[in-house]
Amino acid sequence: MEAPVIALMTDFGDDDFFVASIKGTILKINPKARLIDITHRVPSFNSKSASFILSSCYKYFPEKTIFLVVVDPGVGSSRQILAVETKRYFFIAPDNGVLTLVLEEEDVQQMRAVTNMKYFLPEISHTFEGRDKMAPVAAALSSGEACEELGPELNQYEKIELEKPTIKDKEIIGQIIYKDKFGNLITNISEKKIEEFKKVFEFKKRDKEIKLCLQIKGVEIPRYEESYISVEKGEFLFLIGSLGLVEIACREDSAADRLKADVDDLVKVGVRLEKLE
Amino acid sequence: MEAPVIALMTDFGDDDFFVASIKGTILKINPKARLIDITHRVPSFNSKSASFILSSCYKYFPEKTIFLVVVDPGVGSSRQILAVETKRYFFIAPDNGVLTLVLEEEDVQQMRAVTNMKYFLPEISHTFEGRDKMAPVAAALSSGEACEELGPELNQYEKIELEKPTIKDKEIIGQIIYKDKFGNLITNISEKKIEEFKKVFEFKKRDKEIKLCLQIKGVEIPRYEESYISVEKGEFLFLIGSLGLVEIACREDSAADRLKADVDDLVKVGVRLEKLE
Amino acid sequence: MEAPVIALMTDFGDDDFFVASIKGTILKINPKARLIDITHRVPSFNSKSASFILSSCYKYFPEKTIFLVVVDPGVGSSRQILAVETKRYFFIAPDNGVLTLVLEEEDVQQMRAVTNMKYFLPEISHTFEGRDKMAPVAAALSSGEACEELGPELNQYEKIELEKPTIKDKEIIGQIIYKDKFGNLITNISEKKIEEFKKVFEFKKRDKEIKLCLQIKGVEIPRYEESYISVEKGEFLFLIGSLGLVEIACREDSAADRLKADVDDLVKVGVRLEKLE
Repeated sequence: MEAPVIALMTDFGDDDFFVASIKGTILKINPKARLIDITHRVPSFNSKSASFILSSCYKYFPEKTIFLVVVDPGVGSSRQILAVETKRYFFIAPDNGVLTLVLEEEDVQQMRAVTNMKYFLPEISHTFEGRDKMAPVAAALSSGEACEELGPELNQYEKIELEKPTIKDKEIIGQIIYKDKFGNLITNISEKKIEEFKKVFEFKKRDKEIKLCLQIKGVEIPRYEESYISVEKGEFLFLIGSLGLVEIACREDSAADRLKADVDDLVKVGVRLEKLE
Repeated sequence: MEAPVIALMTDFGDDDFFVASIKGTILKINPKARLIDITHRVPSFNSKSASFILSSCYKYFPEKTIFLVVVDPGVGSSRQILAVETKRYFFIAPDNGVLTLVLEEEDVQQMRAVTNMKYFLPEISHTFEGRDKMAPVAAALSSGEACEELGPELNQYEKIELEKPTIKDKEIIGQIIYKDKFGNLITNISEKKIEEFKKVFEFKKRDKEIKLCLQIKGVEIPRYEESYISVEKGEFLFLIGSLGLVEIACREDSAADRLKADVDDLVKVGVRLEKLE
Repeated sequence: MEAPVIALMTDFGDDDFFVASIKGTILKINPKARLIDITHRVPSFNSKSASFILSSCYKYFPEKTIFLVVVDPGVGSSRQILAVETKRYFFIAPDNGVLTLVLEEEDVQQMRAVTNMKYFLPEISHTFEGRDKMAPVAAALSSGEACEELGPELNQYEKIELEKPTIKDKEIIGQIIYKDKFGNLITNISEKKIEEFKKVFEFKKRDKEIKLCLQIKGVEIPRYEESYISVEKGEFLFLIGSLGLVEIACREDSAADRLKADVDDLVKVGVRLEKLE
C-alpha cells in the first residue's frame, strides 16, 4: 500500500518551531506518513484566505490525502475540531470556516467533532492544539484509524460568508478574492458567469461584435485575452486563470501594485461594442 | 525498517542553492533517508536562536532522528564538528553552542569530533562544510554507520551562556528569549518558576487573593490567563505557552510590535493583591 | 528500486497554491515519487537567476533525478517545453534559457519538445502549464515512461547569453552573477581563471610577491583569503567560494549592502606587488 499523504497548511510561517513540532509528532505516530506542505504562510488568523488556498489545490492531490489545516485564532476556546471524510479525502481543521469552500464541492460522508482524547498527545497545551490534538489525529487517520472513532457526528459547521458576483445593469459585479505572488488579482467571477453574461447580449450581436472590458479602481482594462503573453510587457489584461476564474494581470509586472488593488476591491465586467469591419 | 529521519535546520534561507545541495548530497549517499525541514530561516550566524528553536521541537520527533544543524559562522576555522549520540537521537552540528539547550535535556551516550575524512565529499570547500562534511556524515549515520567511526571522543563542547530568571524583591526577573511569527514574546520564565514564586506568597493568602501581573518596557499587563481567547482582540495577556514558558501575547495582534519589545528585553512578574469579596 | 527523486524549482513563491498543485499532481500520477524543493523563490520571470541556482546544486543530487523547473514568463505562448535526458539526469523546463548552464556541463543524450498530450492533465489552462503539462510529464518519467514518448527530438534550444570574464591590461574583468542570502557576491571569475591570470605574472616574481586584490564599485579589497574567518568581523575579503568562483564577502555582515553592489556590477581582479621581507 502506498504511503498515505498528509498535506499541511498553516499560518505558522517558515521561521519558527511550530511546523516542525507538528511534523515530528506525525512521524512519531506514523513513520510511514508522507508529509507535503501546501503553505505555512497563510496570513495570520485569516481563515478566508486559507479556505481559498485549500480549495485551489486540494483536487490535484491523490485520493485519501489527509488535509491538516491549522489556521486557528480560536485555539483554546470551545470551538470544535472537525474531522471530515468525503468521498475522496479527509480534512482535519478547526471549526472556523476554513473548510467552507472545499465542503461546497466535496461529497461529505461523515463529519465528526474530534473529542476522543485517546488520540491526543498526553500533555495538551492551551495554545497549540495543532501539535497536541490535530497532528496526532491526522497521524491516526493515516495509520488506518476509522473516522468514526474520533468523536460524535456533527450536522453543521461554521461557514465563511462569501460574496457571489451578480449581474445587473449590463455588468457583472464581483470582487477580488486573492492576490497571488506575482500580483495577479483573482476575482470571484467564474468562466461560467462570463458565459451566462455573454448570452444576455447575444441577440444584439448582429452587425457589432461584443467585447468584454473590465473596470477596477477607476481603471478600464479593455484587453480580454487567453494568456499573459497576448499583451506587451507592462500592459494590463484580464483572462480566465488556472482556477477558471477571471484574473486581472499585468504582463511581467504586478497588477496589484500598479492598480493599488487588493482583496475585497470591487470589479466590474461590462461590454464595449465595436463595429465589425 | 522505517526510513531514518534527518531533520535539517540552517540559516541558509529559502532562496538559494545551499539547502538543495545538502539535500542532494544526503540522498545521493542514502536514497532512503527521509528529509524534514525544521527551518532554514534561523537569523544569520545566530547560534543562540538556533539552539532555542531546536530545543523547542526536537522532542516531538521519532527516536533515532538525526538532527543536522548548520548555523556556522566559524566555517573554515578550527572549530570542531560535533556528532552526538544521545539515548534517543543523533545531532550533527558545528561546536559553537547550538546544541547547548538540547544537551542539557538529553542523556548523552557519546560525543565525537567529526574528523574521519572517509565520510566527507572528495572535494571540500572552505566555506560550505554543511554540504561537504556534515551532510555526508548525517547520511552515513542514517545508513547505519556507527558514531564511533566518525572521530575521536570529546568530553566537552561549547556552550552558550543563558540567563536564568531570578526571584528577588517579590518579583521574578527574566527576559525575552524568542519572538515568534505572531509577535508573541516567549520568556525564560518557566511554569515551574511561577509555581515556586507563588509558594513564597502562600502564607499571606488569608483574606486576599494573589494575582500575578507582568511588567515589560514600562507596561503593566494584569491579565494572566489560560489561552489567547480569554481576552478581547487587541488586548494584552500573559500565559504559559506551548513550551511551558511564560509568553506575552496580544490577541490576534503582535505583542512585539505593540510593545516595541524584542529578544533580551527584561520582564518582571510580580503580584498584585486583591481583596476577596 | 529506490523512489525516483523529482527536484522542483519555480518562481511561484511559498505563499500560494501553485507549488501544492504541482506536488499533488505528481503524487496522484506517481505516488512513489519523492519530491525535493530546490527553491520556489527564484525572482519572478528570471530565467538567468534560475539557470544559475540550478547549475549550483544539481550535481549533488542522485543519478536519475528529474529536475522540474517552472520559471516561465512565456507560459501560454508557442515556446516549447523541453525534456532533456543527459547521461545522469532528466530536466523538464520551458525553452527559455533556464537550462543554459547545466546543459553546458551535461552529456546530453536526447532532447525532446514535450507535445504528447497523452501525458498532460485532461484540462489545460493557458496560464499554468507547470501544473497541467510539466508536472504530469515529470511524474510520467518518474514512473518509467521513456523520454522518447514525450515528443519530437530537438537539435537546439534557447540559451541565455552569459558574459565571460576577460583578462586584459593586467586585470581580470568579470561581474557579479549572484547575491546570496548572506549578502555574499558571487562573480563569474573561476578559480581556474585566477590560476591562468597568476601565470602571466609568474616571471616577475623574483624579489616581490604577487598579491591579488579586487575592485568593485570603487572600493579596493586587498584581502584574498581561504575562508571568511581569516578576517575580522565586518571586514571585506574575497575568496574562492563553494562553487569554485571568486566571491566577495564581509565577515558576518552583508557585502552587498555594505558595497551597495548587486548582480551585473563589474568586478576587477588585479595585482599589487609587495616587497618580500
